[in-house]
Amino acid sequence: MTSGDGLLAADLIGVAVFAASGASAGIAKRLDLFGVAFVGFVAALGGGILRDLVIGSVPPLAFADWRYAVTAVAAALLVFWLHPQLTRWRRPVLLLDASGLGLFTVTGTIKALDAGVPPVGACLIGMLTAIGGGLARDLLTGEIPVVLQRDFYALAALSGAILVTILRETGIADPLSMGVSALLITGVRLVALYRRWSAPVAAP
Amino acid sequence: MTSGDGLLAADLIGVAVFAASGASAGIAKRLDLFGVAFVGFVAALGGGILRDLVIGSVPPLAFADWRYAVTAVAAALLVFWLHPQLTRWRRPVLLLDASGLGLFTVTGTIKALDAGVPPVGACLIGMLTAIGGGLARDLLTGEIPVVLQRDFYALAALSGAILVTILRETGIADPLSMGVSALLITGVRLVALYRRWSAPVAAP
Amino acid sequence: MTSGDGLLAADLIGVAVFAASGASAGIAKRLDLFGVAFVGFVAALGGGILRDLVIGSVPPLAFADWRYAVTAVAAALLVFWLHPQLTRWRRPVLLLDASGLGLFTVTGTIKALDAGVPPVGACLIGMLTAIGGGLARDLLTGEIPVVLQRDFYALAALSGAILVTILRETGIADPLSMGVSALLITGVRLVALYRRWSAPVAAP
Repeated sequence: MTSGDGLLAADLIGVAVFAASGASAGIAKRLDLFGVAFVGFVAALGGGILRDLVIGSVPPLAFADWRYAVTAVAAALLVFWLHPQLTRWRRPVLLLDASGLGLFTVTGTIKALDAGVPPVGACLIGMLTAIGGGLARDLLTGEIPVVLQRDFYALAALSGAILVTILRETGIADPLSMGVSALLITGVRLVALYRRWSAPVAAP
Repeated sequence: MTSGDGLLAADLIGVAVFAASGASAGIAKRLDLFGVAFVGFVAALGGGILRDLVIGSVPPLAFADWRYAVTAVAAALLVFWLHPQLTRWRRPVLLLDASGLGLFTVTGTIKALDAGVPPVGACLIGMLTAIGGGLARDLLTGEIPVVLQRDFYALAALSGAILVTILRETGIADPLSMGVSALLITGVRLVALYRRWSAPVAAP
Repeated sequence: MTSGDGLLAADLIGVAVFAASGASAGIAKRLDLFGVAFVGFVAALGGGILRDLVIGSVPPLAFADWRYAVTAVAAALLVFWLHPQLTRWRRPVLLLDASGLGLFTVTGTIKALDAGVPPVGACLIGMLTAIGGGLARDLLTGEIPVVLQRDFYALAALSGAILVTILRETGIADPLSMGVSALLITGVRLVALYRRWSAPVAAP
């Protein structure tokens, strides 16, 4: 297993977890089998599709490599059939979701920088890669996106994207430092969850 | 009239029907003249715009060929002025909508394959071309997309996209087989409507 | 200060005003600090991002030039902290919003024509540049877009886009005539506001 294989495996784990979050939201809204699979697909791959459109990498990876779509749909269908047993899995799902956040932020930021996007734009694209799927999931199921309302989710991604960009601009962006960056984002997200950190709401 | 003219005419009929469905949804939500025309435009051309962005064909056909936008807006305005008389047209509209579904699936899948998208991605893009406009229509009018909730609409499109891809990969994709594929999708959709087929909903 | 500087300054004023409108909508929905900044960003830059994707200019200006994102986020954060004092600013905000409408329509139409989009498509893209951000703002905050429901907002933009396109096609599109076009759109929008012009709603 090479480092490229490792990256792909990690990427597909993120896809599966985000697809499961989309499928759960679809089931809660009583969508049918197709709706659950579709919201799972969008939650898993919507952020990456947006990233690829914005950096001009077409067709987006979600359509160019069949393993992404198949992983997303398979994970969504598993949740569709198994979901009554899934309620006790809440903790591992939150852990995997935080891992997906870290991973998608790092790969999104790197791909934007590689495509020649300047630093500020690359940070934004890295963050959008990580939160875009969840945003689309909430819009499709008729909710105001939860990432805009509370928690310390997008800000963990944005901080990580800034870190990755600084590491790249200073020339010390090896696979190790990128892996540590993803772990840091995941860690910040988990600490924020555990300590109930939240961004402030405006005074009334 | 050449076969290209025939294809264009068929395409514009699909555009007009989907625009009418968007305009009806806009009128039901008490949108103004502009809103009705806009939702009609998006319902008719949103799927094709998404397809063209994803395969890198810019500007999308909806902006590059004025006949598409003019057809969509004209159909939406006709519905705006005539809609009280339209209630008895429910059956022909469902028939035309099923034809649009078949046609947009076939042309979307072919364009994706022609642009070099691999088979799985091309099937997804073909289906998105057919259902994307209706999805956007429902989001703009504040509804959870109906295509995610019930019926056998997207799955008819997806099955058709798979058929078209198999025909193309095996080299037997002449205009006749493509026309038959569009008719098959339309037929499956109509049978599903008549027999009230629906994809299952998850157990509670 | 060159004419290019003047155009950039005017563009950034439009960005700031639209970001403020997005931030206000986010505060009204009790979004947190990040949500308010994000809706501000999308309201200010969503129309331009859509325009750039459609004309194939990637990465979109919102990601390629840091001044756009920084202006949008700074304006949104100012509104987040100052909003209780902002209620008496309603009139200047409506004035600035109308200016943004005029400016974004003119620059959007010109960029589309420069990218080789034919006249009808360029008019639509010019209008979408001006109304796209507000549309996305309303979708993110769970509202049916106000631009589809009442007022004479999008039609002012569309009329202006047609004027700009005619001026360009007849070869008399110097900076002066473009500035006058932007002022005309702004003026029509303000007169419509003052006289309560509205597009008609369909008969029940």
